[in-house]
Amino acid sequence: MDEFELIKNYFEPLATSPKSCLGIGDDCAVLIIPKGHQLLTSTDALVEGVHFPKGAEPACIASRCLGVNISDIAAMGGQPRWYLLALTVPTAEPSWLKRFSSGLKQTAAAADILLIGGDTNCGPLNISIHIMGLVPEQQALKRSGAVSGDAIWVTGTLGNAAWAVTEKLWALNSVTSEQQQLLQHYWYPQPPVEFSCSARHLIHSCIDISDGLLADLTHICRSSEVGACLNLEAIPISEAAYWQGRQCEMSRMQLRKMAVTLGDDYQLCFTAPQSATQELGELAAQKSIQLSCIGEIERGSRLSCRYKGQPIDLNGGYTHF
Amino acid sequence: MDEFELIKNYFEPLATSPKSCLGIGDDCAVLIIPKGHQLLTSTDALVEGVHFPKGAEPACIASRCLGVNISDIAAMGGQPRWYLLALTVPTAEPSWLKRFSSGLKQTAAAADILLIGGDTNCGPLNISIHIMGLVPEQQALKRSGAVSGDAIWVTGTLGNAAWAVTEKLWALNSVTSEQQQLLQHYWYPQPPVEFSCSARHLIHSCIDISDGLLADLTHICRSSEVGACLNLEAIPISEAAYWQGRQCEMSRMQLRKMAVTLGDDYQLCFTAPQSATQELGELAAQKSIQLSCIGEIERGSRLSCRYKGQPIDLNGGYTHF
Repeated sequence: MDEFELIKNYFEPLATSPKSCLGIGDDCAVLIIPKGHQLLTSTDALVEGVHFPKGAEPACIASRCLGVNISDIAAMGGQPRWYLLALTVPTAEPSWLKRFSSGLKQTAAAADILLIGGDTNCGPLNISIHIMGLVPEQQALKRSGAVSGDAIWVTGTLGNAAWAVTEKLWALNSVTSEQQQLLQHYWYPQPPVEFSCSARHLIHSCIDISDGLLADLTHICRSSEVGACLNLEAIPISEAAYWQGRQCEMSRMQLRKMAVTLGDDYQLCFTAPQSATQELGELAAQKSIQLSCIGEIERGSRLSCRYKGQPIDLNGGYTHF
Repeated sequence: MDEFELIKNYFEPLATSPKSCLGIGDDCAVLIIPKGHQLLTSTDALVEGVHFPKGAEPACIASRCLGVNISDIAAMGGQPRWYLLALTVPTAEPSWLKRFSSGLKQTAAAADILLIGGDTNCGPLNISIHIMGLVPEQQALKRSGAVSGDAIWVTGTLGNAAWAVTEKLWALNSVTSEQQQLLQHYWYPQPPVEFSCSARHLIHSCIDISDGLLADLTHICRSSEVGACLNLEAIPISEAAYWQGRQCEMSRMQLRKMAVTLGDDYQLCFTAPQSATQELGELAAQKSIQLSCIGEIERGSRLSCRYKGQPIDLNGGYTHF
């Protein structure tokens, strides 16, 4: 199978040409940006042996790779629309490619985004996605908008994906239903796009939780030139993560420490004025999103943390080197 | 050195925030698309051991990776503006990163494009660039516009980069000045962006020559539902390629066969009505671009080739699998 056949068999069927995008099959895609909108764009790559184990299910890899990219658009309050794929695979293995492209198709359909171009190469497995989305002019959420007195919120529950990594759940021969849920969080990130778009007008600053809550909240604090105080007991933990924590004889505090330190959740951390609390709650309920207030933005530059009123010390998030 | 330091030391200095792009340092870049324009976007990755040899000079890798991406924008008649970089490196080696980022900086400055975001990861060397550019509404060049009677043109000279690959010139301890020129073509592709923008209104169809002229012209023929006849003696060959050909005891015809079959030139192949010939020549002279008429678009679906009036048989271009 040559490069053109590979594209024709597995990726062309995903790349339909809507009115918003011309030029598929040309050297570039041509995007029509609707009036009153700005383009959001970002890139994230997944590398075999780093972000996923050798032999991982290709549909899972595809879902996760799209999910982490969609998350960047959600963090800016935008609507994801299009993506490009730069795929490097060791061999053109039909069964792998078929499962990978059907995983892409499913995740892209759920997120209502379109493949508009790409590049395929031969080499160690590396999947680089370039995501593009739209946001109304001047309304993109940034890290720099937090102000003292803002409530700090997170969507969903934290620390689920981290368990899949630290316990190498993907390598187990059999998993419990709780472990299956943790794996699901890892492979199928669900960035709260609809919530983020609908709550955009209420939010002062926002980031996605990729490196771990502490590291990502630190970015907000630095960009906004503020400090923050976290209430560790308010960190939302899933039943599955509680279960897994019990197997590892971890206390609830230890479990929460892990949940704020490790990454890969792809939920949102954002800040909003206290006056927005009720409306945020209503929007979250409408979109079936779990929303937790986990602390408050303060003056200064310190990120402090308390557990049941007592100050505690925590380390930073995950970095790639 | 952690990921944040790596970005801060080597890539942040390249990412200045112009008026056209907000949000650098956020989860996405926010692009302002000027009124009356459409966005062009494409991606191309380079893989160590496939597109360049292990141990290649990082500044060369950077230049080539940006060049092949800029070429896609030139092929659509657009102006390149912004790029994202997904960089996977085995280790965060300061000397390598310094040379790579300074190569990027130099090439990007020459092309007047800006780094607006990216992702760094640890793994086998893989450089994926996502390029974005602008084109006035409805004016993007496509592969599908060729019509019977069009003249077929190429910019520059063909087959230079192919010599760098086939003779592994980069692995030689010493090279002649001619071989140095061939290597220069490989590492520093010069897609004719300015010419392509200024000649856009005269051009019916266009593609960049990445896979080899025959393969790429075949794309134009298929998209436009036409045939083509090439005059092999009109294929422009550089003095350096003639010199290298003589060392390998190749005839001029053999040299031209190689030049149309192998890829990596990143010049443009385009078609235009015969009436545009004079104006194209003037624009090429203004932009100091070599321009050669190499054949004619015909009815039908056949791509034929002649050498001094005699029909000859040629094979297809390069594919990655």
